[in-house]
Amino acid sequence: MRTDYQNIKVIGFDADDTLWVNETYFRDAETEFAKLLSRFETENKIDQELYKMEINNLAVYGYGVKGFVLSMVELALELSNNTVSNSSIQKILDIGKDMIKKPVELLDGVEEVLKVLYKKYRLIVITKGDLLDQERKLKKSGLLKYFHHIEVLSNKNEDNYSRLLKHLNIKTEHFLMIGNSLKSDVLPLVAIGAKAIHVPFHTTWAHEEVAVNPNNPIDYRTLKNLSEVISVLN
Amino acid sequence: MRTDYQNIKVIGFDADDTLWVNETYFRDAETEFAKLLSRFETENKIDQELYKMEINNLAVYGYGVKGFVLSMVELALELSNNTVSNSSIQKILDIGKDMIKKPVELLDGVEEVLKVLYKKYRLIVITKGDLLDQERKLKKSGLLKYFHHIEVLSNKNEDNYSRLLKHLNIKTEHFLMIGNSLKSDVLPLVAIGAKAIHVPFHTTWAHEEVAVNPNNPIDYRTLKNLSEVISVLN
Repeated sequence: MRTDYQNIKVIGFDADDTLWVNETYFRDAETEFAKLLSRFETENKIDQELYKMEINNLAVYGYGVKGFVLSMVELALELSNNTVSNSSIQKILDIGKDMIKKPVELLDGVEEVLKVLYKKYRLIVITKGDLLDQERKLKKSGLLKYFHHIEVLSNKNEDNYSRLLKHLNIKTEHFLMIGNSLKSDVLPLVAIGAKAIHVPFHTTWAHEEVAVNPNNPIDYRTLKNLSEVISVLN
Repeated sequence: MRTDYQNIKVIGFDADDTLWVNETYFRDAETEFAKLLSRFETENKIDQELYKMEINNLAVYGYGVKGFVLSMVELALELSNNTVSNSSIQKILDIGKDMIKKPVELLDGVEEVLKVLYKKYRLIVITKGDLLDQERKLKKSGLLKYFHHIEVLSNKNEDNYSRLLKHLNIKTEHFLMIGNSLKSDVLPLVAIGAKAIHVPFHTTWAHEEVAVNPNNPIDYRTLKNLSEVISVLN
């Protein structure tokens, strides 16, 4: 299957784990959290329970660090049968603040790719999570100048993408989305008739993982890194 | 000073405490929190310390319930010298979840006003706070059908308003903002050359309060309730 990008006029970039490191910080935080509670449970069990807690709370808290921290506090109380120390609760709050204050670490080749593409295409960022947090990361990244528009969505599904493209006056056949999540950055776009390129990050949150049926091929490309986008589009 | 609304084509509405009750729920939560910690401090002192904690954390957490809950947890640890019970921490988490799940209580006359105005003007919602939370409230409110666009800003300042109007192709002289906060819904608009109408809510968060110099009159109107908007615009 050959994908044709000749019609593309606007390119949307996911942000977390596409432009900069993000999931790694969550994994580090999970490890720290599991160590903090290691006298109550195995680290493996704590990891599993934290994932469950996050999914249970997702509808209430949404994506982002603050909801993650609230889930860690809730799980600490629950796993310890209400015997966890106040200093451990304080450490959980500190883990969260440290995550929010982390410097932005760009992925390899990101700036070079944007520098080339923004001369030929309208570039936009489409991300989900916490509005303030994402705006802050974009400012810290130094990448704002390449983007025509920044959109933070509460969830990346077909409806939200369709509404956004309509609002920005972008025809679906002119739009290409690039991101690390098949579930959030690729499948909904292909479903509404836009193009998508998948650039996996080495780590994916379990909630973003989807099974793709090999007998029902979906029209998207997977690249090893963002730099390959330039030659693929030419 | 007479304000002229003849040029107005687009009306922006603040959401919290303009379309529906919000601040009241924060006040109730603060009262509940102060009672929870009443064996450590007077309720008055707890109120004051919570406000300080929220302001200290505002740059990190931003507006919204989740940051508010994290500030309450942090203050509970601090005020109690790390002796607060796990069950009190759990209660703080519950206060937050209850706030997020609260039904949306429309203010008097809101739907009637929107019903009239949306036939003549393009109406948009411009709010701040948590993206998911605001989207959820709009859905619950049943008011979505009246609005052409929903924008959640991380902060309501001149820059963000200017950028938004530009992005939505709205000329400042065509734009009127209506809201309960002088600081967020009125002053930045007047400063960029748009119109603004102030409809105070009976309760205002201290952080939203501003002193206006009576010798330096600012061109905006204050109305007792939203219903008055209709006659003012005619």
